[in-house]
Order: sequence, then C-alpha cells, then structure tokens
Amino acid sequence: MTRIAIDAMGGDNAPKAIVEGAVWAAMEYNIPIELVGKTYDIERELDRIDQEGIVASAGGGLFPPKRIKVNVKSLDIKKTHASEVIEMGEAPGQAIRKKRNSSIVLAVNSVVTGSSDAVVAAGSTGAAMGASLFGLGRLHGIERPAIATVLPTMKGPLVLIDSGANTDCTPDMLYQFGLMGSTYAKSVLNIENPRIALLNIGEEAGKGDELAKDAYKLFDENKDKLNFIGNAEGKEIFLGNCDVIVCDGFVGNVTLKTIEGVARMFFYMVKNEFSRSLSSKLIGFFVRPILKKMYSKINYEEFGGALLLGVKGITVICHGRSTAYAIKNAVKVAYNAVEAGVNKSIASYFGEIE
Amino acid sequence: MTRIAIDAMGGDNAPKAIVEGAVWAAMEYNIPIELVGKTYDIERELDRIDQEGIVASAGGGLFPPKRIKVNVKSLDIKKTHASEVIEMGEAPGQAIRKKRNSSIVLAVNSVVTGSSDAVVAAGSTGAAMGASLFGLGRLHGIERPAIATVLPTMKGPLVLIDSGANTDCTPDMLYQFGLMGSTYAKSVLNIENPRIALLNIGEEAGKGDELAKDAYKLFDENKDKLNFIGNAEGKEIFLGNCDVIVCDGFVGNVTLKTIEGVARMFFYMVKNEFSRSLSSKLIGFFVRPILKKMYSKINYEEFGGALLLGVKGITVICHGRSTAYAIKNAVKVAYNAVEAGVNKSIASYFGEIE
Repeated sequence: MTRIAIDAMGGDNAPKAIVEGAVWAAMEYNIPIELVGKTYDIERELDRIDQEGIVASAGGGLFPPKRIKVNVKSLDIKKTHASEVIEMGEAPGQAIRKKRNSSIVLAVNSVVTGSSDAVVAAGSTGAAMGASLFGLGRLHGIERPAIATVLPTMKGPLVLIDSGANTDCTPDMLYQFGLMGSTYAKSVLNIENPRIALLNIGEEAGKGDELAKDAYKLFDENKDKLNFIGNAEGKEIFLGNCDVIVCDGFVGNVTLKTIEGVARMFFYMVKNEFSRSLSSKLIGFFVRPILKKMYSKINYEEFGGALLLGVKGITVICHGRSTAYAIKNAVKVAYNAVEAGVNKSIASYFGEIE
Repeated sequence: MTRIAIDAMGGDNAPKAIVEGAVWAAMEYNIPIELVGKTYDIERELDRIDQEGIVASAGGGLFPPKRIKVNVKSLDIKKTHASEVIEMGEAPGQAIRKKRNSSIVLAVNSVVTGSSDAVVAAGSTGAAMGASLFGLGRLHGIERPAIATVLPTMKGPLVLIDSGANTDCTPDMLYQFGLMGSTYAKSVLNIENPRIALLNIGEEAGKGDELAKDAYKLFDENKDKLNFIGNAEGKEIFLGNCDVIVCDGFVGNVTLKTIEGVARMFFYMVKNEFSRSLSSKLIGFFVRPILKKMYSKINYEEFGGALLLGVKGITVICHGRSTAYAIKNAVKVAYNAVEAGVNKSIASYFGEIE
C-alpha cells in the first residue's frame, strides 16, 4: 500500500491544518498516512479531531465552513516523532544539515527507508527541496529539480514548471524542465502528446530576454524529442492551448502568486458588491452556489500541492498558508504521482536521451 | 491647449477603434486631437462616425454594446498624413530608421515640433518606444526609459514599472525605475510619499534571483531618497499595500498579461455559469450590473495606456487589442500626464540627485 509521509509541523497553520488534512485524506481516499512531527502535538490534534471533527473551510473564509465527523481510530495513521522544526526564516541548506531530527528531514527519510512512498510538505519550500535533494538525490541526468504546479485553464489542466525552485536559470535547465513537465503531464494528467510552450513576452521567435531567446532555440532544435509549440504569453496561460508552460523559477513564482492575488481580489470584490445592499444579499444567496462552483475551479487548494520533479522520490510542496482542504488534496496529488510512476517515466526518458 | 497626437494606424483594430476612441475623447473630455495616419482612412472613419456614431463596447463582448451619437465636425481634430505604417512583426529599430513617414514616427514628430503635447500609440510597442527615444531623447540622467502601468488594487491605484520596455535589467536600472515610478505616482496619481516595493518571490531581504538581491541592496542603501518598503510578492500586488512596484520588464510584462488572462477567464466563467440554465439567466439579468461594476474596476481598458517614462515627452503605449473605449481613456492618461508635468518632476529629481 502506498503510504504518504506528511511534515506535520510545516506551514502557517501547522500542526492543526496539516493533521486535519492528513486525517481527511486518510478518510476520504483511504490513503495510509505517516505524520512526522512532535508526537505530543500530533496526538493532541488527533484527539481533538476525533471529538470535534474537521472544520472544512475552503475559499479563505469566502464560504461558510462545514464540520465533518471522523473516527480517527479507524484510520491507518502512523506517527513518527521529530524533535526539531525548521522555521520559515532559516537558511534552508544550513538548517537541513544542522537539524537532522527536524520533521521535514525525517519525513523525507521515511521515503528513503521505504517506510513511506512520498512526502507532503507545507513548510519552508527551500527546506523541503533541500531535504529532498539531499535525502533522495537527483534522478540521473537531471541538472536541477524543478517545481511543477498544475493550474486550471478554460479547457483542462496545465503544468507550470518551474514554479520557484530555481532562479537565474540557464537555457539547458529550462529545456530539462520542459522534458520533466511533459513527462508529468503524460503520466499523471494522461495527456497523450503534451504541447510545451515557453512563457515569454511575445509570440514570435526572437522575443524576450536572453534566456528566453536561447531556450527557444534549444527547444526548437529538439522538436523531434518533444512537442514544442513556441512561445506563450501570460494571458494565454488560461486559454488551454498548451499543456506545459516552461519558465525560470523567479518568473514562475511571481506568475503563480499573481494569479492567486487576482483570484482573491476578484472573489473579495464579488463578496463586497453582493453584500452591499439587501437586494444584493438576496441575489448573493442565489449566486453563491454558482460562485462556489467557479471558485473551486480556480482555487489553488484544489490542487493542494506542486510536485518537485527530478529527485528520486515524490515530494509534494504545498502553499505555506495551506488549509486542511489543501493538504487533503496534496496527499491525493502525492498518491497519484506514486501510482502513476512519474519518476520511472522521467528516469527512463533521461536514460534514453543521455 | 494641450493637444494629443494619436497614431491612427497602430493596433489590431486600427484605424477604426483608434479613430473612434480619439473622437470619443475629444467629445467627452474636450481634448484637442491630432490624428496621424493615412488621411483617406482617417477621413472615411470620421465620416462613418459622424453618421453612425461610436459603438461603445467594453469588456471584450461581455456586455451588450451601446451606440453614442457624435457631431464630429464640432470637435477639434487635426489630421496629419503619414504614408507609411510600421507593422507588428517588423524589427522596431530598423523600421523606425527606414519608415520616416510612418504614422508612429510622425506622431512623435508632432510632439518634437510642438504641434502636439503627447503621443498615444497602440501599434508595435517596440516601434513606439524606439520612435520616442529617437525623436524625443532621454531625460538627463536616465539610463533606460521604462513603461509604467497603473493597476487597480483593493485600496487604490498602483504603478507597475517596468511593464515590458527592458529585459535583462541591471540593479541600477531597477533603481531608476523606482525613482521614476515614484515621481509618476506623486505627480499624476497625487500620492504623497509613494511606497516603493520590489517585486520578488519572498518578503525577506536576500530572497530572489541575483538581480532582485542586488536591487534590494541598492534601494535599501538609498532609503533617504525614496520610500522603499522592501520586497512584495505577486499576491500582494492587489492588496494596495504599496504604490509603486518595481521589476524587470520581462517579469513585469508576464505579470501584466497574466493578470489580464485571469481576469478574462473569470468573466467568461461567470458568463458561462450564468447562461447555463434559464433560472441562471434570470439571475444573470440582476447580477450583470454588479459584474459590470466589478469589471470596470479591473478592466485594463479603464486605464487605457501605460506611460513611457524617461523620455523628453509624453508617450502613452496602449494594448495592441485596444478598443475605442481603451483609446479614449489612454488619451485622458496622456492629457493628465501633460497637465501634471510628470517629466518636469522626473527631470528635476534626476537633476537634483546627479
């Protein structure tokens, strides 16, 4: 059985939201879990959940929360004690070396030893990456692991890679991101011949900064190895005309967070406008289900976490602000990635082309 | 009287939308206009508008268009013939040198000769920039002109600089963008002590790529000269916690176009969800005015165009897809910039600190 290890101490809402999300995933998807962290904190939370249930609130308080009852004792949840926690402000490289008993290091370690099959982490992205790189190692031929985020579009899901693992990338790195993203789209999202585009500031070849221009050439020269369809601008991300969009991690991270910002502004505007008057309130009552449906399509929580591709193992990196709902979905992402054998696909691909 | 020169031939919807927008601005704001382009095209459009009026459709067809009657002959509209047009695909530098009688070059020229006071251009951004740089020259002390776009936030307007004029920027360039953006926010948006933030992938100092790290230091060292408040992530753009956000033009352009893409997706989603069933259609009937109000707050057309800062003159660069409505608003942006004397402020600022 595929078991998912979760850093119970990572994230702004840890351990509460993390443990709730883990329990929720164990219940809803029947996925075995390993919670790694201070066991007394984990046990306190499990006890509370057993009595009070999970308060499921998605949408940043936009929609009224609901309570879900759980029989925690009936679930397959392992607990592993970690005496240390890596905080958000710490320098990741140093922290990983110094805090060998931190929750993230031990969570990765449980994949190394085979106790679990994947890690879900909502704490410091740098620490999760570092621990994964250090503990699991890179897949053969991969220069730099990258974060692949799945985004909704008007037509279907889209893989954005790199979402923030690497800055100051080289054209070679972007090319590898394209290959990894394509493999991910194929094996996990079941897209047959993923269309790969380069995120750029214009559609024509020759547009963009030095990196984009050189990466374009590299992709174009290797069209026999992957389905490169050219440049895509930011406004095209949501049209669903490509399956994988490749960029430097700085650009990718800014893009992702901008999307999040726009989405939040939009829904807060909706909320405000509809609450302004009584008649609007009444309309709001009818409109809310429609908005909820819309929100669920674009809410980052639905995708839960992003995959760190290029390491010998599955690490799902979650938003620092992850709610229980986001963690539940991240566990599913990790589970699906293990079941789909995404790493085997990448490894065999890079083995072939090396 | 401040007169605005408009490249009547630039943009996807030229000359129709451009001439309509110009006429609309002349009528609504009583702003004298100079239309530069093929005069027979311009005259044909003016004639048509005089008979049929302006079809005002904002929101990309999301809302039903309305027709506005105009007495074109009563308006102060000059026509200047330009026998050439620079197309979107042309290499800007070359095109400007070769096509001395192109609409954009002659529009800029009318500012140089004092016939008009500012240029509005919706054609090739590169050509508009090149023509402005070449024709107007740089303000003393400015390394590279940059595009400043005004964005709506939950609290008020925000200046994003650079929105796409320069890629592969240096820290010094970003620092100058900050100074120019701050002056713009002060003189045009009337923000007293504009808060300047650096667009980055984390809030802490030391985050980001090499450029962001070095630019941070530079801003931080010069805190006595400007109100630098640190890094801001993409999700913070809309919170209204800063007044000027500084970034490389590649990042800025991707960010802007991403915002546009998200906004469009939302409104199409809204439209689809509400049109799906009859009851939804009825709700849509009541909800539409609220959505329209919301859309107007985030619609790029409302701001019309972005200012090219750092040249000796006012150039407003518009979206290639500009509608008449966007052009009308861009003319207002140009007019306000002239009236506020934004260049005098920048010039005196850079004169002071040099």
